[in-house]
Amino acid sequence: MQLINALRAALGDSAVLTGPEDRAPFERDWRGLAQNPAVAVIFPQTTAQVTEIVKLCADNGVKIVPQGGNTGLVAGGVPAPGGNQIILNLRRLHQIRALDPVGDTITAEAGATLHAVREAAARANKLFPISFGAEGSAQIGGIISTNAGGMQVLSYGSTRAQVLGLEAVLADGRIWNGLGALRKDNTGLDLKQIFIGAEGTLGIITAATLRLYPAPSAQACALAGVADVAAALELFTRLRHQCGPALTLCEFIDGPAMQLGAAHTPGGRLPFGAPAYVLLELSALDAAATPAATLERLLAEALESGLAQNAVIAQSTREAQGFIAMREAVSEGELREGGAVKHDIAVPLAAIPETVAAIETLVATKYPDCRLNIFGHLGDGNLHINIRPPAGQTLASLATRKTAITIDVEALAVARGGSFSAEHGIGQFRLAGMRAHKSAVELDLMRALKAALDPQNLLNPGKLLPVKDLS
Amino acid sequence: MQLINALRAALGDSAVLTGPEDRAPFERDWRGLAQNPAVAVIFPQTTAQVTEIVKLCADNGVKIVPQGGNTGLVAGGVPAPGGNQIILNLRRLHQIRALDPVGDTITAEAGATLHAVREAAARANKLFPISFGAEGSAQIGGIISTNAGGMQVLSYGSTRAQVLGLEAVLADGRIWNGLGALRKDNTGLDLKQIFIGAEGTLGIITAATLRLYPAPSAQACALAGVADVAAALELFTRLRHQCGPALTLCEFIDGPAMQLGAAHTPGGRLPFGAPAYVLLELSALDAAATPAATLERLLAEALESGLAQNAVIAQSTREAQGFIAMREAVSEGELREGGAVKHDIAVPLAAIPETVAAIETLVATKYPDCRLNIFGHLGDGNLHINIRPPAGQTLASLATRKTAITIDVEALAVARGGSFSAEHGIGQFRLAGMRAHKSAVELDLMRALKAALDPQNLLNPGKLLPVKDLS
Repeated sequence: MQLINALRAALGDSAVLTGPEDRAPFERDWRGLAQNPAVAVIFPQTTAQVTEIVKLCADNGVKIVPQGGNTGLVAGGVPAPGGNQIILNLRRLHQIRALDPVGDTITAEAGATLHAVREAAARANKLFPISFGAEGSAQIGGIISTNAGGMQVLSYGSTRAQVLGLEAVLADGRIWNGLGALRKDNTGLDLKQIFIGAEGTLGIITAATLRLYPAPSAQACALAGVADVAAALELFTRLRHQCGPALTLCEFIDGPAMQLGAAHTPGGRLPFGAPAYVLLELSALDAAATPAATLERLLAEALESGLAQNAVIAQSTREAQGFIAMREAVSEGELREGGAVKHDIAVPLAAIPETVAAIETLVATKYPDCRLNIFGHLGDGNLHINIRPPAGQTLASLATRKTAITIDVEALAVARGGSFSAEHGIGQFRLAGMRAHKSAVELDLMRALKAALDPQNLLNPGKLLPVKDLS
Repeated sequence: MQLINALRAALGDSAVLTGPEDRAPFERDWRGLAQNPAVAVIFPQTTAQVTEIVKLCADNGVKIVPQGGNTGLVAGGVPAPGGNQIILNLRRLHQIRALDPVGDTITAEAGATLHAVREAAARANKLFPISFGAEGSAQIGGIISTNAGGMQVLSYGSTRAQVLGLEAVLADGRIWNGLGALRKDNTGLDLKQIFIGAEGTLGIITAATLRLYPAPSAQACALAGVADVAAALELFTRLRHQCGPALTLCEFIDGPAMQLGAAHTPGGRLPFGAPAYVLLELSALDAAATPAATLERLLAEALESGLAQNAVIAQSTREAQGFIAMREAVSEGELREGGAVKHDIAVPLAAIPETVAAIETLVATKYPDCRLNIFGHLGDGNLHINIRPPAGQTLASLATRKTAITIDVEALAVARGGSFSAEHGIGQFRLAGMRAHKSAVELDLMRALKAALDPQNLLNPGKLLPVKDLS
């Protein structure tokens, strides 16, 4: 094939994989839920090579699937059906180009892992605040293209809030160098906003300048037991009003989810039983501050007023890490014990209790054999609603009901002004939600932007935007 | 004229001003530097009326200038030359539609003043953090369309960071209802980002849902004297590392600017003389916190190490307001004492000292009769570089050198990775900077977005984007 030969000539043989077995791990999303063929998997090492690939593909009418660490949950970084696509894997474009300790910025290439960026920041006594379980694999280009979230969004914002500048290769092969490191710049349209969260459909991000923050000098972590999600919300709003951005973590985990997480954490042990749990972290910068004492005082008030049933403050970093590990192990536990139909909703904070109640009623009445786990980023209004098959069965047993479950859960969130995908994005798996819940005006606007920036539909076809219904 | 009759029929006579004297105050920017005729000034009261106006104008081939409080500095909200435009003034579309004290959000129509939104927030013990001198006139639609800044961006971010949802009327007259109130929502392209900072060129913002924050329970304000901007920067970075977002104000004001501000503040008095000043504010939420004691301790360290020459902590809210008033009076003082060629640059923080040195050298060598004021938002890297005519003369005396001064100052910032308009935007007055400093790729991208969303160039012509050079 002419394109493959041209790519080999331009990038070298080792940068172009075409054998079916070589391609397979890149064609498949990490959960194994989607697999479609690619013509080849290409590994550019420089931005200039990315432009060569884009131009060659455009000339040959072959589409491009940009791929980062392939840790997403919606199959946005692997091919959609339809063939005639190459995977442009960015892992070799992974240099950290600069770190500015005065301006608190870091400039990294798209293929640098989130872990590498966090480590580089930490070596300079700085924090890059985006963090989640897959950070050893997730890459900077991917977290920007998906506007990734995680547990510290509460205090620092999503990935979008961390991006100061971008470099991207456009669908016509030109490089846009927008790698500014400024906190403020109102010179024309803010082009980087177009590419953030666009899932690689409008351009290929090749590098970014990101915000860093002073690393906290001290942190305190606590686990509180509460009666239900309403009590958890009340506890959050009180703490938020007293701590503001110093409250760097506020996770809700219902009892069954927390027990599952504990069971799948080596050495995991819950300090007390409770109907539901809130995981809290308070951070301080000033060396004179005492976040553990502050957290103890605030939790004592919550216990006294009956808002919290129980509370334990971690007595060591290790104990704190243990609490966080149990929270992070919930998804892993679900996967090992049969899987779950996963949802990632957000609603306005005040609507959380009634949304949870409506979901509990839904499951109890329509899916009574299923098990429900609710956990997530309480302060962001973002809850993972995971519906598990009956004990002893796998996800396959829900095959015929999976779509109905998702429609039902998402509708309950959207009806309350909520989102059907708060942080996971759309990719291939949430396109039905786009069709069901987005207005014609919204879809038209998105399509107009896509047509303006990628008129040939070269970039990441079959993702983010549903094909227009021509009926 | 057919359009005027149709507008009168649709909105009523009082909503359509056509007399030259009635139109004049709306045709002229508040500094009186730009004035061009409009066919009429129209005052819609509802979003539905805005759609009617847009459709009528589109049908008649008449262009639309969206106008808020007309407090901008770049004539973005008044007509450009060329005629055939109406001014769509949003002041009557000013309802506050909702305030959610649990989710910390407020939904306001475009014409609500910034002051009205801040007051509504304050009544609920919340803070809306965008604040600047013109807040009594500036409107929500305008601050979003210009991504307005101000003194508290340091801790809370620019206006963009405050916007959770938008309602806008598109160039085809359709309403986009994107008034979500969610902290996280990754369902497709984030359309609101397109309209924020677009200066009304891509759509007309009619309402917004904005973030609120818990109101601080205590604040401490201080004025420090430093040797120069390098010392000011060092003081900032130390405080930022110890206080993080609790440092809610960090303004730099050079000696001459501060003296001018003091002279134009009723009862203004500088507590000490200094080559340059840093204005600081520390905020706390926790009622048990003592920001004044913290600030005193940190400033004592700065004095001991010689970083600060002098420092005074305000002993009352009134004294604190007095410090801030002197800072805010600098622009007013310049205006009253002959005016200034104003600039609004940003550079990476580490480049501030050498940028300031280069500007001082520029003025001393090329414009030695002029006076230089440097002040602004130090922590954002955003400085106002204002070049004043010789004592006793007005801005008119710089008429022949004004353009050269601006080109020189902006080039020094841009050469250091900086911006030539950090917070003021482009409007009509900074189009030369767009031509000089933006790459062909950037201008092409902006034009592609404009063509996609407003193919007839109906919305705010002659702003933001320079006309394409066809030579």
